[in-house]
Order: sequence, then structure tokens, then C-alpha cells
Amino acid sequence: MSTSKLIDETILNIDPLDEISMSKARERQNTLTKPLGSLGRLEELSIKLAGIYADPKPVITNKSVILAAGDHGVVAEGVSAYPQEVTPQMVQNFLSGGAGINVLARHVGANITILDVGVASDLPNHPLLKNVKVARGTQNIANGPAMTRDQAIKCLEIGIQAAEEQISEGADLIAFGEMGIGNTTPSSAITSVITKTDARTTTGRGTGVDDDALDHKISIINKAIDTNQPIPTDGLDVLTKIGGLEIGALAGAMLGTAAHNKPVIVDGFISGAAALIAWTICPNASLYFIASHNSVEPGHNIGLSTMGLKPLFDLEMRLGEGTGATLAMPIIEAASKCLVEMATFAEAGVSGKDDD
Amino acid sequence: MSTSKLIDETILNIDPLDEISMSKARERQNTLTKPLGSLGRLEELSIKLAGIYADPKPVITNKSVILAAGDHGVVAEGVSAYPQEVTPQMVQNFLSGGAGINVLARHVGANITILDVGVASDLPNHPLLKNVKVARGTQNIANGPAMTRDQAIKCLEIGIQAAEEQISEGADLIAFGEMGIGNTTPSSAITSVITKTDARTTTGRGTGVDDDALDHKISIINKAIDTNQPIPTDGLDVLTKIGGLEIGALAGAMLGTAAHNKPVIVDGFISGAAALIAWTICPNASLYFIASHNSVEPGHNIGLSTMGLKPLFDLEMRLGEGTGATLAMPIIEAASKCLVEMATFAEAGVSGKDDD
Repeated sequence: MSTSKLIDETILNIDPLDEISMSKARERQNTLTKPLGSLGRLEELSIKLAGIYADPKPVITNKSVILAAGDHGVVAEGVSAYPQEVTPQMVQNFLSGGAGINVLARHVGANITILDVGVASDLPNHPLLKNVKVARGTQNIANGPAMTRDQAIKCLEIGIQAAEEQISEGADLIAFGEMGIGNTTPSSAITSVITKTDARTTTGRGTGVDDDALDHKISIINKAIDTNQPIPTDGLDVLTKIGGLEIGALAGAMLGTAAHNKPVIVDGFISGAAALIAWTICPNASLYFIASHNSVEPGHNIGLSTMGLKPLFDLEMRLGEGTGATLAMPIIEAASKCLVEMATFAEAGVSGKDDD
Repeated sequence: MSTSKLIDETILNIDPLDEISMSKARERQNTLTKPLGSLGRLEELSIKLAGIYADPKPVITNKSVILAAGDHGVVAEGVSAYPQEVTPQMVQNFLSGGAGINVLARHVGANITILDVGVASDLPNHPLLKNVKVARGTQNIANGPAMTRDQAIKCLEIGIQAAEEQISEGADLIAFGEMGIGNTTPSSAITSVITKTDARTTTGRGTGVDDDALDHKISIINKAIDTNQPIPTDGLDVLTKIGGLEIGALAGAMLGTAAHNKPVIVDGFISGAAALIAWTICPNASLYFIASHNSVEPGHNIGLSTMGLKPLFDLEMRLGEGTGATLAMPIIEAASKCLVEMATFAEAGVSGKDDD
């Protein structure tokens, strides 16, 4: 796949996790003042973090949310419960600080950057908002490709650059969220194609369509796949034909984050679809992925398990915006802090097991 | 059940949750800028918090961990993988700040108070440690009651007073943890008796016993139940006969917290056994309980579901100390902040569903 210099270089920089740091972290976990393995998945997570950062005692200092927004031509088919105007209205809500993601980012102390990759209307200038519009929404995937191959490349590049900018400003833990009315439809299409799963299995109610509308949504997704014939093993082709502009930017940002040895916190279904594209483009990228929550959208877990990921929690959320990924930040920080800050048996003068 | 004035008054002060605040919170959730119900269990939790605090917009400001420690005569039967000396050693580790709970409490910004209700050895003076020793460990429950009825009452009172002290100092969110080598054994006995479940089903490996030791542990639990014949509907009797000193203090602290309209964050299996005793003493108390995590110990979920509780997450933890409950604090705060701080559709000028 010939893409662009930036994308090629980014992919080349995504290495396997650092085994030496992981093995040191694993050894250290077994000396800390707790029964062996008693911190459960926090221990596994701490070892993964050590491998990602290539640091046996990783310390997280700056948290960031990259939130990409875009519109979807497929809303013309009536696949969403909300009108398209909600996309810019919600971006405005992000800028005013009133959305779920604002509350959660403030709560955990994370910065927010919003990328307007493809909102169909004009948005005001604002310090939190980057105008990186590639198009005013995608084309209707029921009738043809979502975007051109050049536009898909541009989306990936925008994402890579956004991640690099956050990381150069100090971010070392990044959550990936999105806003785009209609975007569960391309996400189902992407998940179906990449995981080779029937659309009926990967498709849910999104923001809340009823039974008839759900059947209609599934038929539109099947039509989009039939019409476009995306190549499942070619992430760029999938993005071009049945993707979304914000989904492409997120996939790029995930690749850029992995290339700089930082964890990628995957949010819900749409963020998961972006992760699938990033993983298809560069399989090693998924080593850097941390699945935050299990979305109510049925396709989410299918995508995650295809990549070998298991979410940290299931609170029956389906808001998107990066809310689940941001809520996972304190858990991820807890995992690293337990590894780094807990005393060892020797340091604390605590006796071991009777049979030791 | 005639107990003591403090206990009786505490029970009388545990009211059903405030329906008016809950209904206002529920209405508000439905006006916030998100698809209906899309914050899933965070929404339910926020409504429960409104009911607990009797405030439709509850704000959490001060977090606290109450950690009770005690020893167990039943360790003489070889039910634990660790020697009894680990109890005071771990308390010392708490005082030095090196244990898992220290790391997590610092992480979430919670204070720690440690109650020495029943450690079998002397502990140093320390500002974080309250010397409220009722006995130097329980008696061996395989041979007779763990403690006298007066001692059980004393434990409950100590817990109530500890909760009241924390609350009078401003705590409005309290996690309940414990330390006590051997204390999964009385916890299994308590869970079996109160939930009427066979000990084989409620009993796990604790800090890590092997298969043979697990069978032995189960036989000891059955012997303790047969010997003592605790009355399942009488929480004080269960505590007296097959409980633990730290378990009694935690049960009391849970009752005291509920009586003051504050949430009780239940930790793992032992904390859950204390919750079962508190619930048996006063069924309304469980309305104030928030189950944090699902412990690896198999009896934990049995106890929780008997009280109608579902844990917020399952990270395969089994450390105790209040670690799971403390890790749940940022999630609980997130639930209340989303309810209180998110903009409504009207405030944000965001359009509703097409069919509204």
C-alpha cells in the first residue's frame, strides 16, 4: 500500500512492546506487598504500560483527549435518530464545556483538543478547536465511496499530526473520542468488513433508533458494503469506501500515538472502528491499545476481541465523545502507580507466604 | 434484638432513599445533552446518589477510607497462606504509606483511618491509627464463638463512632476496607449463613491456598457453622459466633454512614461480609451501599446479589484493604459530576431526536 511519507514513517516507528521493561515490571509486581496477582488486571495493565513506555516504572503526568468530529452523507438514508445539525451543535457544546466529555475530562484533569475533520457546516474559531476540515461530511456510502483515497490519506495525516502535537506538548496518556451524527453506521460497516461479521450482528441502535429503523439501518450498511466492496485487509481502502472523516483522523492519531510509545485508550464503538482501521494498516499498533469500556453497541466487543482486547469495565455506556476512555484514565493511572509506588515485602518488612 | 442505645439510634436513622431528589435527578438526566440513557449505569448511580444525599444535585467533596484490622483465632487451623504476623506488619505498611491502599487513596485524594479493633499484637502510636482494640484477635470459630455478644456490640459501636467522626470532619464518600490474616474464612462462614449457600460455593483461595488447603478450609468453615449454629436472620448473632472484630467494626461503620445519608462503598469479599451483617441488622442500610468491584472470591458476588447489588467493575482483584472501593471513587464522582455539571439540551441549544 503506497500512502504518504508521514504515514509510512509512522508505521515504521510502531515497534513491538519493550520486553525488558515488561519483564522487570512483572518481577517487581511479584515483590510488592500483596498476595501474588491480587491486583488482577491492574497488574497486567501495569506490565503492558511498562512495555508501551519502554519504562519498567512508568509515570503518567499529562492526560489528553483527542476528539474528532465529522458528518456523514449516509444520514440522508434516515439511519440516525438525531438530525445532522446536532454535530456542530455538540461541537459548540464541547467548546462551551457542557458536554459529558467536558465534565469527565475536567474530572480526571485531561486536556481536550477537538478536530473538525469533516463537520458539514462552519464552526467558530476557538482555542480548543482545530479547523482541519477535509470535506463537509462524507459522501453517502450507500451509493459509493465515503471519500477519495487522497482524502482518507489526509485524514490519517491530520490524526498523526494531532497526536504528535499533543505528545510534543507533554501528553503521555491519550483518549480517543468522536462526534458525528450517523457515525455508528460506517462503524458497523467497518466492523463487519474487517472482522468478517454479518451486519445484523455488528449493528445496534446508535443514539436510539427503533426496531424498524434498525432493520433499515442494517440494510443500508449491507448496501454500502455491497456497493463499495472494500478490501478487508486494506485499512486505507476500508476507510476510503465506508469510513468517516473523523474515523480516519482517529485512526491516524492512534497510529501516531503508538509510534511515539504512548498508550491509545480506545473509547466506544466508533473509536473501536477507528482502532480496527489503524490495526489493519499496522497490526503492531494494537499492542498500544487499551480498551476502556464495553459499549452497549454490539459491534464494539466484536471489534475489540478481534484485536485481542478486553475492556476494563462495562457501565452500559454508549455516549461516545471519548467519555468511556476518559473515565478509564484514573484506572490506568492507578495501575501504573501501584507498580511504581507500592513497597516491596523486603522494604516493608512483611513476611511472605508460609510455604515460601 | 436488644443491643445498645447507639446502635438502636443509628438503625432508626437509616431512612429509605429520598424519592423526591431521585425523581428530580432522573428528570434532569433526561434533559442533559446526550442520547437518553447513554451514560448507562453512571445515570442510575447518579440517581441513587441523589437519593442517598437527599440532594438532586449531589456534590462530593471529601473522600475517606475506613480500614479496620483484626486477627482471627481460626488461623490456628491452617486456613491461610500467610502467617498471622502479617496483620501487624501490613498495618505498619499502611502507616508507612507503602501498601496498595495507600497508593490508591493518594491517587484519588482520600484520607485513610485505620482502626485496630483486634490485632493480636501491640501496634505503635500513629496519627492514622486508632487504638480501639476489643480483643487480641477472635477465638477459634471452629471450636466456639468468635467473640462475646458484648464484644460484638462494642465492635459495631466502634465502627459507628469512626464513621461519625469521619463525617463530622467532612467526609461525604467513604470506602470500607480491612486487613486480617485469615479473614476470608469467617467471611465465607458469614456469607454461607446469611445467603443460605453451601460453604463450598462461597469459599475461595483467599491470599492463595492450594487445592488441599481449600478443601480443609471449607471443612473448617462447615465445622464453625455446625458448632456455633448462628441464627441467619440475626446479624449480631452471626457476628458474635462466626464473625471477626474488624468485620464487626466495618458493619458498624457502614450503619453509621448510612444513618448520616452518605454512600457506603463496599470493597471485596470481607467488606461484603460486613455489609451482609449490616444489612441483616438493618435491611434499609443496603440502599446506601454501592458495590465497587467483583472480587475473585466466589462468595463475594453471592453476597452482593443477595442484597440486590451489582458491582461497578471486575478487574479480577482480591487484595482487600479497601483497594477496589477506593478505585471506584473516581467513577462515583464522575456519575455525580455528569448529573450536576452537564448542560441541558435547552442550555446548549442542541436539537432533540427527530421524533421528539
